[in-house]
Amino acid sequence: MSLPTRADCAARDAADPLAGMRARFELPEGSIYLDGNSLGALPKSAAARLERVLHAEWGRDLIQSWNTAGWIDLAQRIGDKIAPLVGVGPGELIVADSTSANLYKVLSAGVHIAQEVGRARGAIVSERLNFPTDLYIADSVAKAHGLALDLVERDAIASRLERGDVSVLMLTHVDYRTGQVHDMARTTRAAHAAGALMVWDLAHSAGALPVHLRGDGSREEAADFAVGCGYKYLNGGPGAPAFVWAHPRHTARMDEEGWRQPLSGWLGHVAPFAFTPHYLPARGIQRFVCGTPPILAMAALECGVDVFAEAQAHGGLDAIRAKSIALGDLFIALVEARCAGHGLTVASPRDGRERGSQASLRHADGGYAVVQALIARGVIGDFRAPDILRFGFTPLYTRFVDVWDAVEQLRDVMASGEWRADRFHRRQAVT
Amino acid sequence: MSLPTRADCAARDAADPLAGMRARFELPEGSIYLDGNSLGALPKSAAARLERVLHAEWGRDLIQSWNTAGWIDLAQRIGDKIAPLVGVGPGELIVADSTSANLYKVLSAGVHIAQEVGRARGAIVSERLNFPTDLYIADSVAKAHGLALDLVERDAIASRLERGDVSVLMLTHVDYRTGQVHDMARTTRAAHAAGALMVWDLAHSAGALPVHLRGDGSREEAADFAVGCGYKYLNGGPGAPAFVWAHPRHTARMDEEGWRQPLSGWLGHVAPFAFTPHYLPARGIQRFVCGTPPILAMAALECGVDVFAEAQAHGGLDAIRAKSIALGDLFIALVEARCAGHGLTVASPRDGRERGSQASLRHADGGYAVVQALIARGVIGDFRAPDILRFGFTPLYTRFVDVWDAVEQLRDVMASGEWRADRFHRRQAVT
Repeated sequence: MSLPTRADCAARDAADPLAGMRARFELPEGSIYLDGNSLGALPKSAAARLERVLHAEWGRDLIQSWNTAGWIDLAQRIGDKIAPLVGVGPGELIVADSTSANLYKVLSAGVHIAQEVGRARGAIVSERLNFPTDLYIADSVAKAHGLALDLVERDAIASRLERGDVSVLMLTHVDYRTGQVHDMARTTRAAHAAGALMVWDLAHSAGALPVHLRGDGSREEAADFAVGCGYKYLNGGPGAPAFVWAHPRHTARMDEEGWRQPLSGWLGHVAPFAFTPHYLPARGIQRFVCGTPPILAMAALECGVDVFAEAQAHGGLDAIRAKSIALGDLFIALVEARCAGHGLTVASPRDGRERGSQASLRHADGGYAVVQALIARGVIGDFRAPDILRFGFTPLYTRFVDVWDAVEQLRDVMASGEWRADRFHRRQAVT
Repeated sequence: MSLPTRADCAARDAADPLAGMRARFELPEGSIYLDGNSLGALPKSAAARLERVLHAEWGRDLIQSWNTAGWIDLAQRIGDKIAPLVGVGPGELIVADSTSANLYKVLSAGVHIAQEVGRARGAIVSERLNFPTDLYIADSVAKAHGLALDLVERDAIASRLERGDVSVLMLTHVDYRTGQVHDMARTTRAAHAAGALMVWDLAHSAGALPVHLRGDGSREEAADFAVGCGYKYLNGGPGAPAFVWAHPRHTARMDEEGWRQPLSGWLGHVAPFAFTPHYLPARGIQRFVCGTPPILAMAALECGVDVFAEAQAHGGLDAIRAKSIALGDLFIALVEARCAGHGLTVASPRDGRERGSQASLRHADGGYAVVQALIARGVIGDFRAPDILRFGFTPLYTRFVDVWDAVEQLRDVMASGEWRADRFHRRQAVT
């Protein structure tokens, strides 16, 4: 195909059914933001919402807002709004704590179930290149229960399952470095066929592409547990609370046997305001709640999630996914055409169906500095050690012309050699 | 003493060194707010701060704010501001997660240390009437490690320790129902003399009265771990993040042996942005951090905590404590004089030194309804099952005339019998 011009990109933006959604976000002037995979942009509605939460709910109504403003139901209400984005029903998913804490809860649950139903084997298995917090938490849970944590390469997962000793397979659906997507249905089936439970981390999936945790509805294809992040594609704000999902067959069983997850704080109690000394878990997914949720952060998250309800009228997640693939394809094509010969290689799958909503490049020794040089030019991507340059596309606010302009800036950074300047090599606390 | 008049109360307010601090808070018009022990009032500075966090930090600078706005240091920065309120040094205390989650971490640490140093005995001991989430979490940790959880009455703690099988004594410094205060130094000494570790929950202490976790500086009198709440007397906002403290001798030992707390998320890693698959805990208190903190909620918490730095010029925690005792004494004296004969009894210690910053009443069967009837009249206290009416005093914004007016309203509610109306007996989700 011939290389698109900037005018071609502008034409695609003009025809984009999601084009109007960009106005729902407050975006920095003079920048091209390609890091929504790390921190989503600010939904404009959050300002009025936070003002209401501050002055009317906290300032004026104070403690009564737990009832009158529905603070006590917020975790479930937002959960019910996230649920359709990941293919599950109302009441199945709830907002709580961080992704890491939620992973601790569901891995503990997974190990318990594996033991209960005779599927105790001896290993939690994950990918060696899974996001580190997942591995750190899995290691903690494995050690606590005397299981092994076995980290394998992606192409060795299937054969690892076949060894028959896997209790829980835990994977991140979209790889944070390369954006590579696991085939959720096939992998879940493989885990179940091997007698393992399937736990998905949806940090880079929720809000970025349609997710079908329940698969085709069959027991074989429905995942067991999932966690996900509120501050990436859900645009919930920095450090927004995370979410947790458990298949209803598991929570039903937990209801019967009274099983509790280890972080059994008072808001996961069946009757927190009875103030009884003994813990009785709430029914269903509510049992995965621990302490009191941070309401300001929850309110902002709801604003981010509500944008998706509005996007529904413009094609929803299917339109988001189609545009996401198109943006990524465009980026890769332009980079290969315009930035050749500078040591950049494409780290993400070329087939958009196998790629999340980001495109990553590799540069052997200049990755960090190239990203810094781009930031100095107002193109915001990020760097992930050891050599990955990440560029995230958020179809709700990323335009085709943004991609075109970003690649031109990248071309200039590489062609001029400006990334070699010392100042771009100085590491910051957060990279 | 003769009963103070309202004019006497107004005179005390006029002479109050903390009187000017009330202007730092946005308070509801036409209400008397006596529930700062449950949710502190809104610091006025939070509005401008949240606006800056929203528009400049999140909206404009986006991901770069982790460095440029210091988001990555916020947990330690706020921790260092809370530290002097509880008698510990900089770098010893950090903000993270919820009180419940932090309790899970420190109890796990306590059990580990007890085992390591030959103090493994077999029981975590607490009070039967401790705040339930503490007991729920302690039960979880005890079960995970094969320890007993033994709940005793307050006056049986000393004899329980003497049995010599206590690994960890975990108490809430100020009782959430009655406001009764434990003698921290004496209790910590008793725990240590019995070979037990001492864990304090400071939910109703931090910001309400001077706390000396390190005691007289001796090893005998210094507590081992503490957790506390951001949304009560620290005025950090609904569900504000909590804090966690560990004695430096424990974190130093953890540094040496590489011990990790179970919620080993990526921001408790020594080098989170190295993205290595294996967990190496950060040094010191940072290892008690788990996932990414909710920045909006953290920012509001910092506003609440900053008020205490300003109060320092007006006598600080000593002045707060003196006024708190005076407010409580006034409340109790007025209730006994003005509300006699209606079945209300005082549930809090009469000696202000043994009482936190609240005064509680008991009513055999009408407690909930009396509180509701008071709320209808604009006097906001709360109810704790089965029979406790709680009235919290926050010297930073509660005036002596507020106490006087509140008791007059209580008198009217009781004398009129209006609390018997059906509408005041209907339970809400949050009581």
